[in-house]
Formats: sequence, structure tokens, C-alpha cells
Amino acid sequence: MKQNDETPVILVTNDDGLFAPGIKFLVDVVKQFGEVVVVAPDSPQSAKGHAITIDGPIRLKKVEAFPGIETYECSGTPVDCVKLAKHLIFKDRKQPDLCVSGVNHGSNASINIIYSGTMSAAMEASLEGIDSIGFSSLDYTMEANFEPSRPYIEKIVGHVLTNGLKETKLLNVNIPKDDSGPIKGIKVCRQANARWKEEFHEAEDPRGNKYYWLTGKFVNLDSGTDTDVAALEGGYISIVPSKHDLTEYEGIAPNKDLENISI
Amino acid sequence: MKQNDETPVILVTNDDGLFAPGIKFLVDVVKQFGEVVVVAPDSPQSAKGHAITIDGPIRLKKVEAFPGIETYECSGTPVDCVKLAKHLIFKDRKQPDLCVSGVNHGSNASINIIYSGTMSAAMEASLEGIDSIGFSSLDYTMEANFEPSRPYIEKIVGHVLTNGLKETKLLNVNIPKDDSGPIKGIKVCRQANARWKEEFHEAEDPRGNKYYWLTGKFVNLDSGTDTDVAALEGGYISIVPSKHDLTEYEGIAPNKDLENISI
Repeated sequence: MKQNDETPVILVTNDDGLFAPGIKFLVDVVKQFGEVVVVAPDSPQSAKGHAITIDGPIRLKKVEAFPGIETYECSGTPVDCVKLAKHLIFKDRKQPDLCVSGVNHGSNASINIIYSGTMSAAMEASLEGIDSIGFSSLDYTMEANFEPSRPYIEKIVGHVLTNGLKETKLLNVNIPKDDSGPIKGIKVCRQANARWKEEFHEAEDPRGNKYYWLTGKFVNLDSGTDTDVAALEGGYISIVPSKHDLTEYEGIAPNKDLENISI
Repeated sequence: MKQNDETPVILVTNDDGLFAPGIKFLVDVVKQFGEVVVVAPDSPQSAKGHAITIDGPIRLKKVEAFPGIETYECSGTPVDCVKLAKHLIFKDRKQPDLCVSGVNHGSNASINIIYSGTMSAAMEASLEGIDSIGFSSLDYTMEANFEPSRPYIEKIVGHVLTNGLKETKLLNVNIPKDDSGPIKGIKVCRQANARWKEEFHEAEDPRGNKYYWLTGKFVNLDSGTDTDVAALEGGYISIVPSKHDLTEYEGIAPNKDLENISI
């Protein structure tokens, strides 16, 4: 695309690193919309949540990863990538109009959002005032076929670039697995109330010392039909408008008696 | 305290590790209320957000850190500590009635909650159905004097153990710096809308390679008087009832037009 002041600038990031098929696919989908700049971790950073690197140096290296696309790899977390993009790479040029993160190999629906590097990167960009969309596929394999989602991602990105994200700055988009049938459409919904039921695989290392490896099962505690989990189970792409205000507003009044504690 | 079935069980964790004065202080404050079990990272884990360890083993070691208190150190993140406590240490015994995390050396008010290992550990416990409180001091130094907050922490913990956290499962408690005058009381409030304005310190390593070190300035964008930042500036302890549902409910209706995208 020819670049001028009107050309949208799109920042692409992820948490699986530059070699993940998901980011290659996302770059390929969004490059038609404007000038694309990619900043991604130099190693997989799944489940890193909103971690940032404050106790050590961060490296940033310009690399050739996608033909004709300005790309950097970063030694830090997904959130570090966005911070470096905003404050270093885009310091003296037009700021991104949109940040897209993903496509993640694995669901970020429901409670997964809080563990997700993909969504934390998108949230960080939204905190910086940049409209942001995290895309995740329920297929966590490296062989995931993202093609059926291409027209939807195109339309969502086009819609957001044209209309902007007004009432929210952040969308959490999840895509059903390819083998669950054709995508039926899109549902804008709320985050399902769910959690992981953990089990720890216990084993011994070659020296006889015990270790644990985290494993678990996703448990949906929410019978609502207006949730992201319900939409995905029905074969729809789920979109949850998301935010970084974690206040439980309904909990303020009932806890006001804490103000009456006398010392 | 003599232990019987009525004795409250309190899980204590943090993100600064077992050698931080903040956790020593917190153990000392809460041990009067029941049976205390400590599970903390074996190295500082500040700013680790809601990171979990899924790509490698986790070690857990019973240690002697506080006289008479069952204590474990864990090689994982603060969230890993809580998961291991819940599913391994408490697997076949009475589950914790309360989880307290901290006292963190540094503020977790406002947007800091999303970067915070202290608050992520507390949130993870709340996800597991355990009433949880994260305590943080605005004094980030290791010499922080937490004593002025002792009677408040005692009262808050006692209140929660007696009454339970009903409408919310998680409190984010922040404590003014000791040198800002006597604590005036407690305010139950909402999370201030704020963000970090980043700057990256740029330098060269001994081999002449460039690196960046994250630094920044907290910027309060919120003029409300009902926020945690306002309470702290006024000399009060702030308590924000918090949650893990990140849905921007007000953004659902305005984004419904995304459902009408035709492919």
C-alpha cells in the first residue's frame, strides 16, 4: 500500500514469537490495510500475563521475517514489546492507529484473558490509547488452519479502522477450531465465568529430586447463553469488549463498613 | 493458636520472596488469627503479572523461615505458588479460609494491579473461591516501616475472617508511606484511571551492544475523589474491591454491529 499521512499504521505483536504461524497469518491478513510494523518476542511467552521486565535489560533487534514488513524481535515479554514499540520505535513518527495481537495458538476466551500474553499485549496498547484487538484460535497446535477465519478478521479489522473503537479500546476475539464446522458468524458477548481446575503432574528429575508440572482442565461455571464460551461452542467467533478497570463496583457499598474500623 | 476445626487457615504469599521484610511483617500480623501456611517465590517476582509456568517444571521446598510457621518456597511465579498451595499442599486437608498477599514493597493502586505479582496471587486465590486480600505499601524500599499499618491490617483481616467477603472475593489494599504522616483511616474506593508514561533508558553493554531498561512515571488521568489514588494522597488506606471479569459491559451494545458483518 502506498504510504501517506492517511495510511493507517498497524502494530502487530503476539506472545508465541516471530516463528509462530499465527503471527505470519495475521501479518498477511492486515498488510492490505496500511503500514505494518511487527514487534514480537524472540521466544515463546505464552501465559506470561501482564508481566513486564523491570529487573534487567531488554534487547530489540530489527530482523527480516516477513517480506517488505518492518519487523523487530524483542527479548522481553509481550507487554515489553508494546512499550518498546510505543516509546522507542514510534517515538518520532505517526503512532499506530491499531494494534493487533495474535493469532494466538490457543483460546483466550473467558478467564484465559488474565493469563494471556497475547491479550496483555493488546491491553497494554489500549492503555496507551491505541485501539487494540487480540485474536486467538481455539486450535493450539502449530498446524492450526486459520484460513476459515481470514474473511472475518479482514472485516473486523476493516470495521475497527473505519469506525474506531469508541466505548471500549480493546476487543478479545476468539475463533472456533477449524474442525468444528464452518464459522457461523460473530457474537459480541461477555466473558464467561470459568476457571482452571489444576492438577500437578509430579515426577522426579534424573537426580531424584521431585518436580511439578502444571496441567489442568477448563471448567465453565457459567450457564449463560450470552458468554464467549457459549458463542464458541455454538460455532461463532466471540468478541468480548474488554477493559483494565478491575474494580468490582457492586462490592464498594457492601464493603463500606470497613471505613468504620476504629483503631 | 490452638488448632481445631474452627481454627481459620490463612495462606500467606507475596511476589518479593521469603526474604522480603513485607512478608515477615504480614506473617507476624496474621499469625494471631489461626493456622498460617506460607508459600512464596524463591526469588523476587515483581511485575510478573498473572504469569504462570507452563513450559517447565516447578520446584517446591519446605523451609524454615518463620519460627513455628509451615513455610514453602517455590521456583515459580506468585500465581504458581497459589496453585501449588491449593492443589498440592492443601490437597487432603482443610482449605484456606483466607489468602493474604504482601505486604508488597511498592504501590499496587490503580493500574498497577494488572502488572502486580502480589495482586495476581491474591486474584488467583479468589478465583479458587478463597477470600483474598492483597496488601501493598507505597514505600517500595526494603527499609519500609510497616508498623503504623499494623492495627489496620489486624482489623481488616479480623473483619474479613468474621464476616467473609460477600459481593467480592478480592480486596486490593494500599497503604500510604510512613513519612506522609499518621494514617487517617480507610477509604473503600474504585481503581483510579491512570497509566505509566514509559521511558527507556538506553545504554551499551561491555561488548558495545545496545540495550534498554524500562523506567517510567505514574500519570494519574483521574480527577475523581472516590479513587484509590485520591484516598492515598489524602493519607488514607485505600481498599478497592476487585474482580477478574474484564468485560467492558458498556461496550457490548455499541459493538453489536460487528455481528452484522456478512462474509
